[in-house]
Amino acid sequence: MNRRSLLKGGLLAGLGLPFISPAELLAQAKPYAKKAKNIIMLVSDGMSTGTLNMADIYSNRAFGKGTHWIQLYKDAKVNRALMDTASANSLVTDSAAASSSWGGGMRVKNGSLNVGPKGETPQPILQKFKQGGKKVGCVTTVPVTHATPAGFCVNIDSRDGQDEIAEMYLKLKFDVMLGGGAEHFDDKRKGGSIIPQFLAQGFKVAQNRDEMMNLKNSGPVIGIFAPDGLPYEIDRKNSPELMKKVPSLAEMMNKAISLMKDNPKGFALQVEGGKVDWAAHGNDTGGLIFDQLAFDEAVGQAIEFAEKDGETLVIITTDHGNANPGLFYGDTYKDFDRIQHFKHSNDWILNQLNNASAEKNVTELIEAGTGIGITPAEAKQLLTHFSDIVPGQLYNAANLPFNELARILGKYTLVQWAGMNHTADYVELTMFGPGSESLKPFIKNYELHNFMLNAAEMPADFLAPVVKS
Amino acid sequence: MNRRSLLKGGLLAGLGLPFISPAELLAQAKPYAKKAKNIIMLVSDGMSTGTLNMADIYSNRAFGKGTHWIQLYKDAKVNRALMDTASANSLVTDSAAASSSWGGGMRVKNGSLNVGPKGETPQPILQKFKQGGKKVGCVTTVPVTHATPAGFCVNIDSRDGQDEIAEMYLKLKFDVMLGGGAEHFDDKRKGGSIIPQFLAQGFKVAQNRDEMMNLKNSGPVIGIFAPDGLPYEIDRKNSPELMKKVPSLAEMMNKAISLMKDNPKGFALQVEGGKVDWAAHGNDTGGLIFDQLAFDEAVGQAIEFAEKDGETLVIITTDHGNANPGLFYGDTYKDFDRIQHFKHSNDWILNQLNNASAEKNVTELIEAGTGIGITPAEAKQLLTHFSDIVPGQLYNAANLPFNELARILGKYTLVQWAGMNHTADYVELTMFGPGSESLKPFIKNYELHNFMLNAAEMPADFLAPVVKS
Repeated sequence: MNRRSLLKGGLLAGLGLPFISPAELLAQAKPYAKKAKNIIMLVSDGMSTGTLNMADIYSNRAFGKGTHWIQLYKDAKVNRALMDTASANSLVTDSAAASSSWGGGMRVKNGSLNVGPKGETPQPILQKFKQGGKKVGCVTTVPVTHATPAGFCVNIDSRDGQDEIAEMYLKLKFDVMLGGGAEHFDDKRKGGSIIPQFLAQGFKVAQNRDEMMNLKNSGPVIGIFAPDGLPYEIDRKNSPELMKKVPSLAEMMNKAISLMKDNPKGFALQVEGGKVDWAAHGNDTGGLIFDQLAFDEAVGQAIEFAEKDGETLVIITTDHGNANPGLFYGDTYKDFDRIQHFKHSNDWILNQLNNASAEKNVTELIEAGTGIGITPAEAKQLLTHFSDIVPGQLYNAANLPFNELARILGKYTLVQWAGMNHTADYVELTMFGPGSESLKPFIKNYELHNFMLNAAEMPADFLAPVVKS
Repeated sequence: MNRRSLLKGGLLAGLGLPFISPAELLAQAKPYAKKAKNIIMLVSDGMSTGTLNMADIYSNRAFGKGTHWIQLYKDAKVNRALMDTASANSLVTDSAAASSSWGGGMRVKNGSLNVGPKGETPQPILQKFKQGGKKVGCVTTVPVTHATPAGFCVNIDSRDGQDEIAEMYLKLKFDVMLGGGAEHFDDKRKGGSIIPQFLAQGFKVAQNRDEMMNLKNSGPVIGIFAPDGLPYEIDRKNSPELMKKVPSLAEMMNKAISLMKDNPKGFALQVEGGKVDWAAHGNDTGGLIFDQLAFDEAVGQAIEFAEKDGETLVIITTDHGNANPGLFYGDTYKDFDRIQHFKHSNDWILNQLNNASAEKNVTELIEAGTGIGITPAEAKQLLTHFSDIVPGQLYNAANLPFNELARILGKYTLVQWAGMNHTADYVELTMFGPGSESLKPFIKNYELHNFMLNAAEMPADFLAPVVKS
């Protein structure tokens, strides 16, 4: 009696269990270990469901095959859940509270990083994993001191304290931190550069792609490739200069894995496609789709590593919806296919314009960036929206007319947006590898903390108290 | 050795299969049959993911427990997939092409019902099930002759031929058709009422809730409770008159099940929450959430029936996204909780206004409908948008300012919308019962046709040819 017939006709039937088709059983049967030695958590920050599926549709149309993420579903290789992403004070989380829920195992108020409503300071998960003998790190396309990586690393009242977070990283001596945010480390900091202190503490510091590629496995590493966030992937890909200076998310991830994978007790790595969120805040279709595709490249390579490794749990998700974009009704495929000719983000376009620009500048720049020839009336309309700078605004401090440009281009691409901020949407969560079989179809964000610790068989006293929230 | 230890430590380990936790195994183990004698397919038409989760969030906040749909995930009772909803000519389907994909097993162009791009006329699935000895029917909150029910029943070039579809139903003699659309049957039809012909053919005809409740299991039944679509649930619930005349979706479903369940060869039933789609087209938050909750009531009762019955496959899904609403960022729960005071749909409000209305009418009516006191400036702004009727428009022929009212109320509720039409979003699909174990995590809409036929073990020559699309 072979495995199939034994399970189909024999044992399970005898137990009164339902019929399970052989195809399904084999699809479930993945030859991976019971314990997750390594964990890679990939976060496409601020990814509404429309973002996930527009990237897949784009990929199908442009390349004849869909994304790695959706392919995992077609191959029935993963378990999936919807995740409730609320924070302690709102149905709609920010990235700080979201990452803290995973990082600390409890919900905190929007804006804080692992500091609870009553002043609780749960130990962040990468500190726990480090204490458990693993190598740990974060890679991101936004500052390494930004909310999502920081939520796995530190306790601090306010996500705005990025200079302080940089100093915390100096003390934590985590194995790999790669991304943007140089201004929180170099001489643009209040009080001057702390890079010399990183070097003195034995860190290797990489400031461009080549330096990162040459990093060897010998002590902690920090790589910072832009003053603030890294450039949008669509702008990076279309600039030889940026391609030379800035690595892709997948390149950063692969370097991080290569620096940590030989550790006998394994590693834990967070990989954030952070500019997906920034693009959503900016209703920036080119920014969004190409950064989601860059994230998807990392997904594909993480799964490839995990399939070979057999001891790696890969978690793929987002922290919240943002702007709920969609590809809207149209009679042909042509409109959406225009995005295949995009060369630049709306961010790239708008940062070159101001209220002194001529209509001709506007139309030429938009044509250069997107291949779309907007009308003079549309150019005129866009120019009326350039206005004053709003100091202290988290996104789009220069108050550029992102929404208006999105509305104009949406007429040509049929991509439309419901707003410019986060949403309460339940979000897609996917797992592959050891531990993934325990995933239930609905999960609250903070439950992931203990889930990861349990999958890695960390000591029981590492677990966060189980709360109702 | 009990079941748990046998499976955990024994057989599966010996086969080299991965560890499956006992909790997970028991969650998977549903004591239902191998063959689906009955199929209930529930379609929340035009349900974007934000619709699904705002209804759950609303339910949690208002009633202290979430929706039945999401509870199925919390209880790990179901299998889930994302579904690609494209049509033959567009990335974004309409409801006719969507229902045809399930009903006929192939993609057709938007607007047609089971007539393919080359004139193909695949036999609709309820005709097949009828031929296979099952009782069959549709219940819906929109006309029974509308796209989604019709896609399971008939072949016709254009969904607009609702009068013709009514005549087709006369010939098909399906067991139960309940919903709206009286104007396609009664003396508002071109050529006069065909209700006498239904009666002459042995149909029982119900025209209000009591008549429906009194229907007995003796021959085919048609119930039509409104000239066009049924009222929005929020308007129905707050009108004693409508409550008396019009049954709820769950009441219609339960009646349909009771009329068909004793058939020796079982039944196949489509249940459509059709006005979810109409509410999304109208960016009508009250309409949307309460019709989604009415749909969810049907979901809960369908599962309850299926759990007792043991031979019923329940499929729960939507045909496409619509308008991609979301609950947007806010510092408190208060804004969204305002919806708990809503008494009427935006449709109810706007149909009582016109460009001769005074600002005071506007504010008073909106306060009566929603409990929200808009400002005089907002009332004035709304009035500027009343304009001319657009003849021949499928939705909102009176050209009422649904979008503008949604924008105004969205400032108070934080519910915002990305557009007023369908989207290409991959959509949520859930299954419970016999056959559900074969669901893969990603499916194309037309694949559901053979999936249902296979689950019910219909003859192989009933299957649609397997196509690549």
